[in-house]
Amino acid sequence: MAGIYQRTLNLRAALRHLSPHSTFSSAATVRHSLVGPRSSFLPITTSQFGVCCRKLHTGADGHKLRSPAAAPDRLPFSRITQGDLDFFRKILPGRVITDPDLLESSNVDWLKSVRGSSELLLRPQTTEEVSQILKYCNSRNLAVNPQGGNTGLVGGSVPVYDEIILSTALMNNILTFDSISGILTCQAGCVLENLSLYLEEKDYIMPLDLGAKGSCHIGGNVATNAGGLRLLRYGSLHGTVLGLEVVLGDGQVLDCLATLRKDNTGYDLKQLFIGSEGTLGVITAVSILCPRKPKSVNVVFLGCETFEQLLKTFQLCRGMLGEILSAYEFLDSEYCPFYVVIETSGSDPKHDGEKLHNFLEEAMTSSLVTDGTVATEDSKIKALWSMRERVTEALTHDGFTYKYDISLPVEKIYQLVTDMREHLGDRAKSVVGYGHVGDGNLHLNVTSPAKDPALLAAIEPFVYEWTARCHGSISAEHGLGLKKRNYIYYSKPSQAVALMGNIKAMLDPKGILNPYKTLPDNLK
Amino acid sequence: MAGIYQRTLNLRAALRHLSPHSTFSSAATVRHSLVGPRSSFLPITTSQFGVCCRKLHTGADGHKLRSPAAAPDRLPFSRITQGDLDFFRKILPGRVITDPDLLESSNVDWLKSVRGSSELLLRPQTTEEVSQILKYCNSRNLAVNPQGGNTGLVGGSVPVYDEIILSTALMNNILTFDSISGILTCQAGCVLENLSLYLEEKDYIMPLDLGAKGSCHIGGNVATNAGGLRLLRYGSLHGTVLGLEVVLGDGQVLDCLATLRKDNTGYDLKQLFIGSEGTLGVITAVSILCPRKPKSVNVVFLGCETFEQLLKTFQLCRGMLGEILSAYEFLDSEYCPFYVVIETSGSDPKHDGEKLHNFLEEAMTSSLVTDGTVATEDSKIKALWSMRERVTEALTHDGFTYKYDISLPVEKIYQLVTDMREHLGDRAKSVVGYGHVGDGNLHLNVTSPAKDPALLAAIEPFVYEWTARCHGSISAEHGLGLKKRNYIYYSKPSQAVALMGNIKAMLDPKGILNPYKTLPDNLK
Repeated sequence: MAGIYQRTLNLRAALRHLSPHSTFSSAATVRHSLVGPRSSFLPITTSQFGVCCRKLHTGADGHKLRSPAAAPDRLPFSRITQGDLDFFRKILPGRVITDPDLLESSNVDWLKSVRGSSELLLRPQTTEEVSQILKYCNSRNLAVNPQGGNTGLVGGSVPVYDEIILSTALMNNILTFDSISGILTCQAGCVLENLSLYLEEKDYIMPLDLGAKGSCHIGGNVATNAGGLRLLRYGSLHGTVLGLEVVLGDGQVLDCLATLRKDNTGYDLKQLFIGSEGTLGVITAVSILCPRKPKSVNVVFLGCETFEQLLKTFQLCRGMLGEILSAYEFLDSEYCPFYVVIETSGSDPKHDGEKLHNFLEEAMTSSLVTDGTVATEDSKIKALWSMRERVTEALTHDGFTYKYDISLPVEKIYQLVTDMREHLGDRAKSVVGYGHVGDGNLHLNVTSPAKDPALLAAIEPFVYEWTARCHGSISAEHGLGLKKRNYIYYSKPSQAVALMGNIKAMLDPKGILNPYKTLPDNLK
Repeated sequence: MAGIYQRTLNLRAALRHLSPHSTFSSAATVRHSLVGPRSSFLPITTSQFGVCCRKLHTGADGHKLRSPAAAPDRLPFSRITQGDLDFFRKILPGRVITDPDLLESSNVDWLKSVRGSSELLLRPQTTEEVSQILKYCNSRNLAVNPQGGNTGLVGGSVPVYDEIILSTALMNNILTFDSISGILTCQAGCVLENLSLYLEEKDYIMPLDLGAKGSCHIGGNVATNAGGLRLLRYGSLHGTVLGLEVVLGDGQVLDCLATLRKDNTGYDLKQLFIGSEGTLGVITAVSILCPRKPKSVNVVFLGCETFEQLLKTFQLCRGMLGEILSAYEFLDSEYCPFYVVIETSGSDPKHDGEKLHNFLEEAMTSSLVTDGTVATEDSKIKALWSMRERVTEALTHDGFTYKYDISLPVEKIYQLVTDMREHLGDRAKSVVGYGHVGDGNLHLNVTSPAKDPALLAAIEPFVYEWTARCHGSISAEHGLGLKKRNYIYYSKPSQAVALMGNIKAMLDPKGILNPYKTLPDNLK
């Protein structure tokens, strides 16, 4: 980490560079992916895993006590027959995959932490095909695992047992784009980065951006209510998604694909499906409100001595950068002070530069920040973001990382890091926090040389209990999926969970959609 | 309308005034209410109306064919007994209103268009009291009409028959405010303007603002998914509301009152209640994300010769004003060109002034705008907004106004005005459109000297059919309430409406919450 110091410019020099009369270069916000495209770690052979999903969760070493994250027993869904295959081959000619090698990458999540044993992958191209598939599966009591880019982190996007994988990969058409309103409609399987590239040519951007953009599908983003790097500025998908087309468990097509900013005619049904992780319906098309492409983007990398200074800097920057602030990320390490990455995006390079200059001068004068660097060009912006990303990458060199995605009142997010450090003492190799200060979202990472059940037992449920005491969320943006479904009560009261169960029963009475996910096992 | 010209400054003069080196005064966005506080038209005596809600809707002149907006027959709810009154007086000492004079203002909507005949008004102060009331009403099969500030425009906020009125007026405490994150939590009965005043002292604002702010309650705003003047900038309540506490029909308290920007633990239940018009539960508390108070606010009033120029001006201004654009409203009249009201709000008065100057210069050079005025001071900003509001007020001088709140693709919003004018010909006194261009929201007004059933028959269903052909919404921000419930199929497919019915049946099986509202009569 000390190397970061050597790579930074002196902040005073940066301030000279940022004089009010200099003009920033126009720079698109291009960042390296936090994770490589899925293909970078494929193919994976079964022998690398050698255990089924349930075993992974119960521990391959044969622990008798099953952890709350362990998969429950297989539910009594039907098994696939030759007749089923015949039916699917008739409606999806050439798009019915049964070859185990081809199925491999869809059975395993990209963290390589869970694996299912599905023997059937379907690749529909149209909503009508999805509808036919689900109608058939519902009547036959066959379980289905809807899958987008399979970049999820909680085991929600892969089968647990032999669920049929329903991939949106071939549903990748852009349907319409209105250049006056900025409203895009597209099929669910469009890759986020492809949508971004399409929009940039039209002077717009997607309202969300995340590390997995090169692989993730917009349908999966909506199904998991993905947060990401632009949430601070453009808000959550509950506000930017204007319409959805969804196929319900029985094959019924629910058309809520409005392209209107305002529509108060009855209950806003689409909201139910945002963040439901494919358990209530399969999203087949999305309409979304896109912001104009900023003409000016700047990134600053700063150091603060204490978390209190970091929060004061945040307040200062919200006041002085105001409407151009588009990211305020932090990362900490046991060996250095706190680092802050601030991004601005706006419509006037000169004005943005002046605001940034004034903010940095004030932050230096008030001794809130100690050092840092300012990126005024595209290549330097990329370099700064990749510096932030390298820190997370560096964690993997420690061996094994236990990852948590916690939402807390902003002023409390760092307390969890220090409390966890104290609580674990020597048992962890390192405890590192980073995340989105602006959203109160902490990514907590605990590393050890290898998987360590004793360490895990020291972390959980400590981390969840701590979060619940502060009325935080045990999953800020990753969702619950398979891995965290039984921890839901730490963040939601039992009445709310029971109501979720009623909604699930109403929309998918046979429970064929993404079983074993999102809702806890002890639900009636 | 011609008077507006005389009151405007010449735009060229305004541009001189707006030279890049001048500084705008810091101005809070204070506007006159579009409507006076409720008390301004009260007390109303029964003789002024003399007809019950159903008669009003079927036409007091005894038309035999009931219009789709007419109230259905009273459902078989219980009648209030002395025992019921005794119970309520015990749990709400001194807050059980049965005096007909005191009930009068709660039985009539502020448009004076519908009236109920409730004989009981309850004024709980706490969530626990609301819970006790609903638990009792549910067991006794007594219908309940939840009521906030009673400023709704579609007859959703008053009883239709003898429903018990449950007022949130005494639930007006602010619970918490976090000055770092800007997250406010408060009881549902807080008046919007009071929340705004509270926040302004802390350098924040509410993310919504509307004409009725002096009377409307935040709970009612959320229950009706109110849009208003800041939606273009801060988005809808589906994005800014972070948590809700809701009491369900059976008295169960659903605590989803999170104060987190990110929380992906299960289905986002609170979304169901946003815009459900009190038919699914009674909102008792709200947590909402508030933006920082802008340091600089400017308002421009411009004239455009054609709607095409108005749209081009909108595009230009989105590009050049970018992140500081906070409103783009238009109004038209048969006697003058189009008027545009543009509001900017930002963090740096000098930068905002420069952006505005450059935009106006470009708009003039390109001959997109013909004339206008710029407000750089608080008093002039108020004067400009009230000029916009006076036009709507002026309509009332024509006699009777038929009002529609339509959402359309932006480029189509004016076509409806011209088509309606052509369609109605001499039958209407005037056809006037105004609204929020930025949101694609048209407020269409048709005036006549008096109520005119033949004119109404010419407007409806023409206006709804026209809107449906363009995939618009027949209620952009006002909701459906009593008056528009049966028009829902113009904007929503039957599958979606059926699903809404299932949700209603699940959450309120006895149907005691705000009956006859939102959902159509022909629902199974």
